[in-house]
Amino acid sequence: MGKFYGIGVGPGDSSLITVKATEVLTQMDVIYCPTMFDNKDSLAYEIAKPYIQEDTIVKQHIFRAKDEESNEPFWQATAEEVAKDLDQGLNVGFITLGDPSTYSTYSYILHRLDEAYDVETIAGITSYNQIAATLNQSLALDTEAFCVVPATADEAIINNALEHYDTVVFLKIKNHLNKIFRALDATNRRADGVIISQVSQEKEKIIDDLTEFDISQRLSYFTTMIVSKQKGRY
Amino acid sequence: MGKFYGIGVGPGDSSLITVKATEVLTQMDVIYCPTMFDNKDSLAYEIAKPYIQEDTIVKQHIFRAKDEESNEPFWQATAEEVAKDLDQGLNVGFITLGDPSTYSTYSYILHRLDEAYDVETIAGITSYNQIAATLNQSLALDTEAFCVVPATADEAIINNALEHYDTVVFLKIKNHLNKIFRALDATNRRADGVIISQVSQEKEKIIDDLTEFDISQRLSYFTTMIVSKQKGRY
Repeated sequence: MGKFYGIGVGPGDSSLITVKATEVLTQMDVIYCPTMFDNKDSLAYEIAKPYIQEDTIVKQHIFRAKDEESNEPFWQATAEEVAKDLDQGLNVGFITLGDPSTYSTYSYILHRLDEAYDVETIAGITSYNQIAATLNQSLALDTEAFCVVPATADEAIINNALEHYDTVVFLKIKNHLNKIFRALDATNRRADGVIISQVSQEKEKIIDDLTEFDISQRLSYFTTMIVSKQKGRY
Repeated sequence: MGKFYGIGVGPGDSSLITVKATEVLTQMDVIYCPTMFDNKDSLAYEIAKPYIQEDTIVKQHIFRAKDEESNEPFWQATAEEVAKDLDQGLNVGFITLGDPSTYSTYSYILHRLDEAYDVETIAGITSYNQIAATLNQSLALDTEAFCVVPATADEAIINNALEHYDTVVFLKIKNHLNKIFRALDATNRRADGVIISQVSQEKEKIIDDLTEFDISQRLSYFTTMIVSKQKGRY
């Protein structure tokens, strides 16, 4: 029976992957790559490519429904296909952008397999760790706490985070700019914010001053905001 | 003039360092390693050692006062020494456990140098990302938010985190077990918790059931608690 690996490939630059992940990647018989519903090439695959051997089978899979339908059938179908590969004795890697334990589809596949199969998760650099590195700014120091909040969360938790925490990381803000800026203004924290798209990738974009920000502008899907009282201090 | 690098070396296992960090480490003229005040060998150095060249100068430095005195003089003295090395045209790496932007002394050194010198921060795997990987458990999924809270934080923020967030990571709990368990019991979340010491290191220890936990037991300095409603689910 094969072993199932969740492999974090980091935020975008192929060198921001761990030595362990590169070693595991070279040993895989099959690699599953997530793609968007529009079936473009997988960014995770592009990152991992330099470490994947020629005879490894690469399967690109869509893991997300386009609209309001449930994603469950996508996850279930993938888990069943992975199980078949494992039953044949193949070692299967599931690659994931950033870290596999942090908002990753991998968790849903893992959940369907970890009782019957041997699994191992290989951590990766998250987008917001890389953003802090790129900005040479700390996420937190000393006794400070920080929060990571998807922009899809309830407005109550978004406001709680901005009211009580020195640093708040907002993920996937692209389609929720209205909501996030309303909360920033309600808590008077707009000046603490910086927006970063596609960190460590070729198209990396940093918007450092949000005071004149136009919320009608189009941002990449991979856009994060860090709101920090330390902004510009460290 | 040399360049200053903050280099995250990850949680403990030398393979949990990024390819980029290994490349930068091989190119350093001088490497500064943090040690505890008892001047034991630096754990960060042990992790980075396989990637450090023989002719690299390694300087072990104490960055923390033993008792209540200020740490500022330690940081200032180190920053001044780094500046001298940089002025001589040497490339200087400052290695840090985990990630250099997450509760790292590196931030205080960086803060004293980044206006006058060229600096670059190389992200690393945090202890809690590795803990999630080791446990095959997600930190957060979908619309869930999560918090990272040092056990030295105010009790108000510790309680806020436990009341409002599905997942809370408590760092450095060793000397604060009373406070943390009081907050867990007040919010009825003891059953959600798991304690992990020295993750990915030889002496790794996992305490999965906290219901009978004895708070008088001695834990390593590198001990983290993850409290999660997902415990055991993913």
